Amino acid sequence: MAERFEIVEKALLRMLEEKKYTALRDLLVVMNPSDIAALFDDLQEERIPLLFRLLPKELAAETFVEMESDAQELLIQGFSDNELKEVLDELYVDDAADLVEEMPANVVKRILRQADPDMRTSINQILRYPDNSAGSIMTTEYVTLRPDMTVGESILRIRRQGIDKETIYTCYVTQDRTLVGLVTVKDLLLAEDDDIPIGEIMLTNLISVTTHTDQEEVAHMFSKYNFLALPVVDGEHRIVGIVTFDDAMDVMEDEATEDMEIMAAMTPSEKTYLKSSPFELFKHRIPWLLLLMVSATFTGMIISSFEGALSMLPVLTAFIPMLMDTGGNCGSQSSVTVIRSLSLDELRFSDLAKVVWKEIRTAVLCSIVLAAACFLKILLVDRMLLQNPSVSMLVNGVVCLTLAVTVIMAKVVGCTLPLFAKKLGFDPAVMASPFITTIVDALSLLIYFLFAKLLLGV
Amino acid sequence: MAERFEIVEKALLRMLEEKKYTALRDLLVVMNPSDIAALFDDLQEERIPLLFRLLPKELAAETFVEMESDAQELLIQGFSDNELKEVLDELYVDDAADLVEEMPANVVKRILRQADPDMRTSINQILRYPDNSAGSIMTTEYVTLRPDMTVGESILRIRRQGIDKETIYTCYVTQDRTLVGLVTVKDLLLAEDDDIPIGEIMLTNLISVTTHTDQEEVAHMFSKYNFLALPVVDGEHRIVGIVTFDDAMDVMEDEATEDMEIMAAMTPSEKTYLKSSPFELFKHRIPWLLLLMVSATFTGMIISSFEGALSMLPVLTAFIPMLMDTGGNCGSQSSVTVIRSLSLDELRFSDLAKVVWKEIRTAVLCSIVLAAACFLKILLVDRMLLQNPSVSMLVNGVVCLTLAVTVIMAKVVGCTLPLFAKKLGFDPAVMASPFITTIVDALSLLIYFLFAKLLLGV
Repeated sequence: MAERFEIVEKALLRMLEEKKYTALRDLLVVMNPSDIAALFDDLQEERIPLLFRLLPKELAAETFVEMESDAQELLIQGFSDNELKEVLDELYVDDAADLVEEMPANVVKRILRQADPDMRTSINQILRYPDNSAGSIMTTEYVTLRPDMTVGESILRIRRQGIDKETIYTCYVTQDRTLVGLVTVKDLLLAEDDDIPIGEIMLTNLISVTTHTDQEEVAHMFSKYNFLALPVVDGEHRIVGIVTFDDAMDVMEDEATEDMEIMAAMTPSEKTYLKSSPFELFKHRIPWLLLLMVSATFTGMIISSFEGALSMLPVLTAFIPMLMDTGGNCGSQSSVTVIRSLSLDELRFSDLAKVVWKEIRTAVLCSIVLAAACFLKILLVDRMLLQNPSVSMLVNGVVCLTLAVTVIMAKVVGCTLPLFAKKLGFDPAVMASPFITTIVDALSLLIYFLFAKLLLGV
Repeated sequence: MAERFEIVEKALLRMLEEKKYTALRDLLVVMNPSDIAALFDDLQEERIPLLFRLLPKELAAETFVEMESDAQELLIQGFSDNELKEVLDELYVDDAADLVEEMPANVVKRILRQADPDMRTSINQILRYPDNSAGSIMTTEYVTLRPDMTVGESILRIRRQGIDKETIYTCYVTQDRTLVGLVTVKDLLLAEDDDIPIGEIMLTNLISVTTHTDQEEVAHMFSKYNFLALPVVDGEHRIVGIVTFDDAMDVMEDEATEDMEIMAAMTPSEKTYLKSSPFELFKHRIPWLLLLMVSATFTGMIISSFEGALSMLPVLTAFIPMLMDTGGNCGSQSSVTVIRSLSLDELRFSDLAKVVWKEIRTAVLCSIVLAAACFLKILLVDRMLLQNPSVSMLVNGVVCLTLAVTVIMAKVVGCTLPLFAKKLGFDPAVMASPFITTIVDALSLLIYFLFAKLLLGV
């Protein structure tokens, strides 16, 4: 797939080079808007307007929607008012609202001036809702029916109105603007008789969200219920928009990316990696690095306070990285599992006891195997192979005992912290590897030195 | 949302307790199949068949599809042949194939015996394709049209055939079984004239996948092109099935979960967390823990070989955790960013140089800030506050210099390894925190002791 695309890309660039515009246009019109947009992203800036003007009107608008915001801005700057109006007229309002949100103020002014009054009103309405809310990703273009309309009348209405609607497949039935039901085009087409009133065949058991529902919850409802579209209602249960499945898919992808970024100790970014400047990447990464570096100094302080023990038995130092790393890995396994289950709505805080009990049993199994493997490894490698005299059987015992206890402690910490974070209203993803590792590091060292003191008398 | 569901759940359980079956049925019929299925998962096993039999036929089948496989098995075991046949008749073939795949052999036999011959053939066809391929997630129920049919004839055909099809909104146009185009129901409804032949309005610029295309790529095409359905073709470009958007959404969610699990050093699991036994969790976690523990012993060996230096200047030990953790965090930031970009198809191996150059510049910014903060922290806390005489300005310099170099090294290692993994055909997600941490730990210690040797002469 990717290779095929690169071949097309090369062919297009050569045609552009050789000014074969007719051939170029013939190739472009059979391409998908997303692929044309991807092509634009790889193009030198000055060539974008030229290539864009080769596209037929509708394809041009569809391609425009899929482009990165800097290329969009470049194009708008070069558009005549007329060209801008043509593109805007072809956009769905939710796409237009996204565009307005990403453009600088002077471009926004031009866009709003060229948009027709209906679209201007809708854009302003969508932009009023908070970021990441259902209101901010909805579209205000959908088909509404009344319960007293017949199937035949409804199909006629769809045929008349449908051209400008993002989806016609789910139609919403309203009475005095209140949402009372929905019918799908499938229901309409498969209805036995054109004279049946909508009120009789509509689905009244509706699932809707409000304008302020979090977009992550919205996306989650799509994957749970397999909807094509989901109605968005206001406080009086009046329909104000719909979210369509394609926007929900984008949200799902964005939210997963965001979770991964947070889990790897970064503040999430809206830009793709290749589009982000090093300074932007730096800004998203440095706060957590600083915080975690400062917390790691506690671990250093623990080591400092046991300096005496370490200088009496220097071999103990050699096992510190292994103990810390294994503890960190165990903790992050548990935390990531719990974080993902929370974000897929498979876990609630009330499951805390169940989770801890499951993790303890898992941890015991892990710790037995790990401690046994560690014991054997020290026996075979450090004592027999490397003939290290300071690695006594008692030292081996202390290391393996610490390992076993650390594993259990790490898994309990790893599974509980995300649940508490969720309960307290924080994003559980923050409680992933880097954070857990820092805590587990300190705790594992304390356990280590405690056992060393007790059993080795250092 | 979640709270509202818990209230309904409690009400239902009370009705069940008090044997108010009519009220129970009235409440169930207005619920969504996914929610009823979620309810079943929380129910005691002996109550499931009772509650299931209260559901009307169609709702029962829709609920059945959404249930966990152990509850499905329980129900089938209790079904009469007739009941089983009734449920099977309501299923779409891709759901039936999923069911067959998850049931034990004796249950599969009963299912195939009760399924009608058409469905049996389709199930067997779907099961022939490898796991995670487009063929394994497709359905064989879709509407086909011929190019010489008119719009009016096509709508009639949909009305006649549509009832059993998973989606009617995208219809595929074939000629001698070869896929030649598609029309949407929107196109049909909005066509100006019922007599226009399909050949004139169909979209011929088709995007399709083959039966062996990886499901991750399929899901990715959905989110890129906003399709409702995607045709699956064989080697001769004959359509053999379609993948629908709801299955693509499930794949997107599963693939993100899988990536997160691999990134946290676990082998991916198909079961949800609460359904997994501690032994299953153990099996998914222990291989990586063992591998990483063994690799961490190299870090220990590096420390051992510098035991002399550490006993001359024990204070050096105290900074080891901070250096290792910061290096690990820096590396995992870069690796996770690159891994995610790879799985969203935003990066290719050919971007290697661009990525490394971006990461080096980001790393230099991070290392300047981190080293400066570390220098100040040691000056203020260790020297002035704690009055630790062994933390000389030279020791401070060695620590900060190591930190700066480690950060740059970690970011370069973190961004390159996933790209090479991808190039070599491994899953890049393996190259996340735990793996990177282990490598970065060893390298950062080598850098540390090198600078200590050079500057402190230990």
